[in-house]
Amino acid sequence: MSAYDTNNIFAKILRGEIPSHQVYEDDATVAFMDVMPQAEGHVLVLPKTPSRNILDADASTLPSLIGTVQKIAIAAKEAFDADGVTIMQFNEAPAGQSVFHLHFHVIPRRHGIPLKPHSGSMEDGAVLAANAEKIRQAL
Amino acid sequence: MSAYDTNNIFAKILRGEIPSHQVYEDDATVAFMDVMPQAEGHVLVLPKTPSRNILDADASTLPSLIGTVQKIAIAAKEAFDADGVTIMQFNEAPAGQSVFHLHFHVIPRRHGIPLKPHSGSMEDGAVLAANAEKIRQAL
Repeated sequence: MSAYDTNNIFAKILRGEIPSHQVYEDDATVAFMDVMPQAEGHVLVLPKTPSRNILDADASTLPSLIGTVQKIAIAAKEAFDADGVTIMQFNEAPAGQSVFHLHFHVIPRRHGIPLKPHSGSMEDGAVLAANAEKIRQAL
Repeated sequence: MSAYDTNNIFAKILRGEIPSHQVYEDDATVAFMDVMPQAEGHVLVLPKTPSRNILDADASTLPSLIGTVQKIAIAAKEAFDADGVTIMQFNEAPAGQSVFHLHFHVIPRRHGIPLKPHSGSMEDGAVLAANAEKIRQAL
């Protein structure tokens, strides 16, 4: 496995060098909108501690991470009046990982609407900002 | 959301009423082979504590659960010399959930090989037994 690259885009977001539509932050974790959502309200949840993915993560970073994933899943379902929530976490490119800082995808789902492709089209910033606000209100 | 059904198939496996190809067990969690694998070495990781999915789970059940998910992901990648690991967790049917006891899918992945459909075809029991043994050896 390759080493952690401190210049990956999520590391830059965590350092505040790139903006994000943040919905949640605590001492250990951050959640913000995926800019290429697979469905309305698609959120990414990250630990602040650097690791490439779950395979090299310090086990101590995982309890707070999954706690935030649960909080966001419940809030996103409520915010978008969704019928379910798909949670995904990809480890290495053959498994679907495209940014190499550990993260969970939290995606509100609706009856009969398939997921859009991963890393598909960029969503409008105003839409992402409005969706982030909906989730913050539900938290 | 519907209530937890104590007769779901994973509850029956946890009670020992239905056999499984188990790869791991501790005080709080169990891992066994998915009988309809989306790739070779597809494992399910469950908390023993009943909940329908992550939306109604007691937050205290999640740290041990994600800890076992990490252990199994690392072991399954090694056992099958995989190139990556896809982790998925579905909440309610529109999100892909088909058995209503909280569980994570841990799926070893290889370059260029797409996932087979969820709830596809039943794998041969001897293959599942051999794959379970490979993962136990890697734990």
